Amino acid sequence: MSATITPIRRAKAPSLDPMMALVAADMHQVNGVILARMQSDVPLIPELAGHLIAGGGKRMRPMLTLACARLLDYQGTRHHKLAASVEFIHTATLLHDDVVDGSGLRRGRRTANIIWGNPASVLVGDFLFSRAFELMVEDGSLRVLRILSGASAVIAEGEVNQLSAQRRIETGEARYLDIIGAKTAALFAAACRIAAVVAERDEAVEQALDAYGRNLGIAFQLVDDAIDYASDGATMGKDAGDDFRDGKVTLPVILAYARGNEEDRRFWRDAIEGRRTSDEDLALANRLLRETGAIDDTLARARHYGQLAIDSLSGIGGGTARAALIEAVEFAIARAY
Amino acid sequence: MSATITPIRRAKAPSLDPMMALVAADMHQVNGVILARMQSDVPLIPELAGHLIAGGGKRMRPMLTLACARLLDYQGTRHHKLAASVEFIHTATLLHDDVVDGSGLRRGRRTANIIWGNPASVLVGDFLFSRAFELMVEDGSLRVLRILSGASAVIAEGEVNQLSAQRRIETGEARYLDIIGAKTAALFAAACRIAAVVAERDEAVEQALDAYGRNLGIAFQLVDDAIDYASDGATMGKDAGDDFRDGKVTLPVILAYARGNEEDRRFWRDAIEGRRTSDEDLALANRLLRETGAIDDTLARARHYGQLAIDSLSGIGGGTARAALIEAVEFAIARAY
Repeated sequence: MSATITPIRRAKAPSLDPMMALVAADMHQVNGVILARMQSDVPLIPELAGHLIAGGGKRMRPMLTLACARLLDYQGTRHHKLAASVEFIHTATLLHDDVVDGSGLRRGRRTANIIWGNPASVLVGDFLFSRAFELMVEDGSLRVLRILSGASAVIAEGEVNQLSAQRRIETGEARYLDIIGAKTAALFAAACRIAAVVAERDEAVEQALDAYGRNLGIAFQLVDDAIDYASDGATMGKDAGDDFRDGKVTLPVILAYARGNEEDRRFWRDAIEGRRTSDEDLALANRLLRETGAIDDTLARARHYGQLAIDSLSGIGGGTARAALIEAVEFAIARAY
Repeated sequence: MSATITPIRRAKAPSLDPMMALVAADMHQVNGVILARMQSDVPLIPELAGHLIAGGGKRMRPMLTLACARLLDYQGTRHHKLAASVEFIHTATLLHDDVVDGSGLRRGRRTANIIWGNPASVLVGDFLFSRAFELMVEDGSLRVLRILSGASAVIAEGEVNQLSAQRRIETGEARYLDIIGAKTAALFAAACRIAAVVAERDEAVEQALDAYGRNLGIAFQLVDDAIDYASDGATMGKDAGDDFRDGKVTLPVILAYARGNEEDRRFWRDAIEGRRTSDEDLALANRLLRETGAIDDTLARARHYGQLAIDSLSGIGGGTARAALIEAVEFAIARAY
C-alpha cells in the first residue's frame, strides 16, 4: 500500500533504530544535560519533571536535532544543550496539554496532572520552559533563540486554535492542517533547523531541514490520528478510540463527515459534541471511517507529507545519516500498517 | 509610624504619580507594543489577554524599567519592547497563578479562568510567555535574555515552592522570604536591572538597580500580605481575608503562629488547613494578629526592605527620576496606613 514512500526496498519493516544508533553517543550527552538541568532545590520539580522525562518517550525531537547535525557533519557539542532545550519545550507542552485535555494516561502511565494535580503540572511546565530558554541563552545564538522562541509562540497559538475548534464538527481540513502544523510540526521543524545554524550552513540548508521536520511532523500526527481508531492500547500507550471519546476532530473524522450522508453527519455531530461515546458508537464510527475511505486517505495524506520530507533532503549530506533520516519518515508512516 | 522610610518630608501622602508622570510618554509607546504584540489570528488570544492587560493594572514592572532607564538618562527606544516583554511575562504568570489558585476575582474583575476556563488561561499564558521571548530576541541583547530567562525560571521555581508550602503552617519566615523573593521580587529586580543593560552601564549599576527592584518587590509583597487582613475590597480588588480563607501562609500568619500559645497555634493550624474559615474565625485571626504585633512587624519588615531599596540608589542618577523611584518605595509602604 505504500510503494510511493519507500525509495529503498527493505527486507524488514522500517524502524528508528538506524537513527538511534547514529546519535547514541550524542544522546547520552543530551540525557546528561536534561538530568542536570531539570534539578532544583524545590524537590517537586525534578520529581514531577522526571516522571514524564523518564517515562519512555522516544525523544524524537532532540534525536532529530542530533541526526540533522550529523547529516551536516557538525563536529562540535553545541547541539547537546540545544537538543535538551528542545526536549524541555516539548515536555513543558506535554505537561500543559495533559492539563488542558484532562488526560489521565500518556505512554501507558498515569499523567503528572493525575498524580500531582493540575497546579503542579502548570508550574513545572513553566519552569521547564524557562529552563529551555536559559539553555539557549547559554548557547548564545540569537538565530537559534529566534527560531525556538518563534516556534514556541506558534505552538501555543496552535494549541489555542485547537481549543477553539474543540468539539466543533465543522472544523475543515485546512484549519486542521493549520492546527497540527502549529502544535506538532513547528517544533519538529525548529528541532531540525537549528542543526543547520550550529553547523553554520546557509539559509537554503536551514529551509530544507525546516521542511524535512515540518513535513515529518505532519505525517507523524496524521498517522497518530489514524492509529487512534485502529490500534490497541499497547501501540499508542493510550486506548484506541480515545480521540473519539474525547470528541476530538481529527482528519479521519473530518473526511468521514465531509463524505457522509445526512444520517452519518448527524451521528458525527452527536459524537463530537459528546452525545455518542459508547463502544457501539465507536464501532459505528470505525465502520463509517472504513466505508468512506477516511482512514486510508488520512494515511495517503501522511504519505504525501512523508514524501515531501524525504524530497526536502535532496542534495544535502549523505551516507548513514541521510539514510537514517529517510528511514525515520518511513517508520513514521509504517506504524499504521 | 514610618519616619525611617521617609527621607523627605511631604505635605501629602506618597504616590506613584511622579513616576507615572516621568514615564508617561514612554509608557504610551510600551502600550502600543503590548497591544500590537498580543494580536493573533486566533481571536481567543487577544480577547483573553486583553481582558487582563486592559484590566486596570498599574503596569508597575514595565514602569520600573522605564523609570530606571530615565534615572540613567538613557536616550534610546530599546526599553519600550523590553518593558512590554516584562509585562507579558508578568501577565503570563498572573494567568497561570489564577489557574493554580482557582481565583475568581482579580483587581475587582472576574478572572480569565472563570470566564474562558482554565485550559484557555494556561495556553494564552504560554503564548504571552513565548511572545515575551520573541520581543527580547528582537532586541538582541543576550545579557537581557540571560537576566529575564533566569528570572522566569526563578519565578516558576518560587511558585512551585509556594505550592509545596501550601496549607503548611510550619512554613518559616526564611522559607517564606525565599518564596516571595522568587515569585514576586525576581521580576521587579530584572525589570530594573535591564535598564542598566540598555543604558550600557557597568555591573555595579546593574547590581544596584537589581537590589532596588528586589527589595521594593519584597516590600510590596509584605505590605500586600498585611493589607489582606486589614483592608476592604476596594483597596485590593479582592476581599479582605482572602488569604485567610484560602489557607495561605503569609508573614503575618507566620509571626502570629510563632508567637502564639498552644491554643493559638492550634487555631492557626486548623485555619491554614482549611477547617476554620468563617467570619468569626477571620475576626479571631485579626485579633491574634493584632495582639501578637504580627501585622505591625510585617510592616516593619516591609519598611526595612523599603529602606534597602532606597539606599541601593545611593550615588546613581538624580533629579526627578531618583525622587520618583524613592517615592514609589514610600508609596508601596504607605498603602498600608
